[in-house]
Amino acid sequence: SFSHHMEEWDSMAEEYKQLEEEHKAYKQKVEELKNLQNKLGTSIKKQRKDLLQLSEKLQECDVPAEYRHKVLDIREKVKERNEVFREIEAFLPKDNGIFLNTTLGHINVTMFSKSAKHRYKEEYEKFKFVMTIIMLFLSLTLRFVLESRVGDAIFHFLLVWYYCTLTLRESILIVNGSRIKGWWVAHHYISTYLTGVGLTWPDSTTYHLFRDQYMDFSIYLSFVQILQYYYQSGCLYRLRALGERHNMDITVEGFQTWMWRGLKFLLPFVYLGHFFQLYNAYTLYQLSRIPECEEWQVLMMSATFFVLFLGNSISTWGTVVNKLGD
Amino acid sequence: SFSHHMEEWDSMAEEYKQLEEEHKAYKQKVEELKNLQNKLGTSIKKQRKDLLQLSEKLQECDVPAEYRHKVLDIREKVKERNEVFREIEAFLPKDNGIFLNTTLGHINVTMFSKSAKHRYKEEYEKFKFVMTIIMLFLSLTLRFVLESRVGDAIFHFLLVWYYCTLTLRESILIVNGSRIKGWWVAHHYISTYLTGVGLTWPDSTTYHLFRDQYMDFSIYLSFVQILQYYYQSGCLYRLRALGERHNMDITVEGFQTWMWRGLKFLLPFVYLGHFFQLYNAYTLYQLSRIPECEEWQVLMMSATFFVLFLGNSISTWGTVVNKLGD
Ligand SMILES: CC(C)(COP(=O)(O)OP(=O)(O)OC[C@H]1O[C@@H](n2cnc3c(N)ncnc32)[C@H](O)[C@@H]1OP(=O)(O)O)[C@@H](O)C(=O)NCCC(=O)NCCS
Ligand SMILES: CC(C)(COP(=O)(O)OP(=O)(O)OC[C@H]1O[C@@H](n2cnc3c(N)ncnc32)[C@H](O)[C@@H]1OP(=O)(O)O)[C@@H](O)C(=O)NCCC(=O)NCCS
Repeated sequence: SFSHHMEEWDSMAEEYKQLEEEHKAYKQKVEELKNLQNKLGTSIKKQRKDLLQLSEKLQECDVPAEYRHKVLDIREKVKERNEVFREIEAFLPKDNGIFLNTTLGHINVTMFSKSAKHRYKEEYEKFKFVMTIIMLFLSLTLRFVLESRVGDAIFHFLLVWYYCTLTLRESILIVNGSRIKGWWVAHHYISTYLTGVGLTWPDSTTYHLFRDQYMDFSIYLSFVQILQYYYQSGCLYRLRALGERHNMDITVEGFQTWMWRGLKFLLPFVYLGHFFQLYNAYTLYQLSRIPECEEWQVLMMSATFFVLFLGNSISTWGTVVNKLGD
Repeated sequence: SFSHHMEEWDSMAEEYKQLEEEHKAYKQKVEELKNLQNKLGTSIKKQRKDLLQLSEKLQECDVPAEYRHKVLDIREKVKERNEVFREIEAFLPKDNGIFLNTTLGHINVTMFSKSAKHRYKEEYEKFKFVMTIIMLFLSLTLRFVLESRVGDAIFHFLLVWYYCTLTLRESILIVNGSRIKGWWVAHHYISTYLTGVGLTWPDSTTYHLFRDQYMDFSIYLSFVQILQYYYQSGCLYRLRALGERHNMDITVEGFQTWMWRGLKFLLPFVYLGHFFQLYNAYTLYQLSRIPECEEWQVLMMSATFFVLFLGNSISTWGTVVNKLGD
């Protein structure tokens, strides 16, 4: 049986050699891929510049009447090509922007396949959903069952962490070609800040005067986020089914009707949420003027809520107006 | 000149077509790479299992005297191969572990080239260095120039953020094959927690009684970290120059002497740091027993400092003993 083991060993040596070969091939392929990425990147940059220059030149020069049609055609094609460039670039490594670079360092977060991108976005939505449920449960408990400053601190910690990870994930989504608006990302930075300040608010008179309203707000926010989740994952699901997200034909009227129905249902709740933020800003401002108030957190949070109210209402309006324009 | 523009347009169409071809080739190459990664992964898993089984069988069976030598040889080769497997795996996509998955989502953070890994590690060291300098500057200011609770809050915020990003970056380093010990990562999680608790400590009697000592500790810690930076980036630099990090020959005595000299210089300061942590734990414990103390943070931080003291001393001892054993 010993000689049998020796035979086994020899056949393993064979397999090992094969692995080494494959590893060499692998390293080479990685190298090739990197070269191809560079090539595609420079080529796109050059073509984009050329197209821009040509468009400008065509603007300036006299077009013979029989070529008008041709020029219109070119304009159309230029638009299409720019769209294609954008799509290709979504699969090339990209610079991360300051935030990801300072937090994660220079690491490539571009995903190289469509399915990976989709999975990542779905996971992001699901993560938000699960965390919202947890937060809803926690805020209900803290509001109606257990009033404890340590419980509040844990809740605040969780919120800070939650908003932090959202900003990270959203930065990654943007690198991967998501069209999420700058404000929603900024919104999560500001929320991180807001909850951070809330965390440092000591257990004082003003804290107790505001606590219940804050918990009510958290409960309401979780509720709206659940609705939002159903709307947004519904959109996502339908768009996937239709094929491309950003290449929608106007013929997909079914989707449009669905979306508008969803929006009409969702938006009143969203606006009520914004109003609640304004109301928080107002209450905190009033609190900051009572003689018992010694904490800088009160006025700071009031201002922050006001900024959130402003930014959210304006951005939501903008989105709706844009969608109507399409 | 219009016909000239038309010629330009046609040549651009040519370039565009070429880009489309390259893009197709690119997608295919990505696909191939993924397949090769899977293949390498399964092959390594299988070979590892086979080698383990063979080793066990050889342990059990009687080896003919004339084969003793051969079996020793096999043992040696098995070790080598396992090392090679580990190295290859460092370039295959890997699962991130819970922490990265919950914070960043399922995203591939493996770097596919050695130079990228090296750059990342160097960046990590430099990041720590720059942040340490900033923190040193801040804590000196807060200690000797400006006593302000808001300033303290900012300092704490920065610390929380700093330790958070460290845990992220270290998780990424580990996925990429770093041999950093679990404790140092845990250390940064615990520090995040500690500074978070410090952030919620209200502006009370106990806070003021401990503040100066805490700032002294921060200043000292920054100082040790600067020394540590010079030692660790020195190690890194020399190992790079020697070639492989984890494949060191014992012949590279120059490095060994350098390292031991560095360690001998560094370690007394590190141990003084651990002692300082123990002293913090002690002071906070005493504070928690005075009648003015109403804050849960005091005892919590005392316990946390004690945990840090224990873990750090044990791990540092472990590292030194290991290095002596090599
Ligand atoms: C108004 C609203 C419903 C529109 O959602 P929508 O139809 O998905 O908007 P768009 O079509 O402009 O979406 C573009 C992209 O941004 C994302 N996005 C839109 N709003 C987002 C938000 N609030 N957070 C995160 N991502 C968002 C979409 O998922 C989409 O991503 P994709 O390009 O990767 O597919 C949504 O923005 C919303 O709910 N806003 C209100 C949020 C709020 O104010 N909350 C606090 C108070 S209650
Ligand atoms: C003791 C010490 C000097 C040893 O450092 P070392 O020689 O680099 O240790 P090792 O050879 O075991 O390093 C293995 C890996 O872990 C990393 N590493 C070691 N200690 C680390 C630490 N404290 N933080 C982050 N990474 C560390 C190394 O960079 C190396 O990474 P690599 O595999 O990617 O190259 C170092 O661990 C140390 O300074 N510890 C004390 C820290 C401390 O207690 N601070 C707080 C109180 S002052």
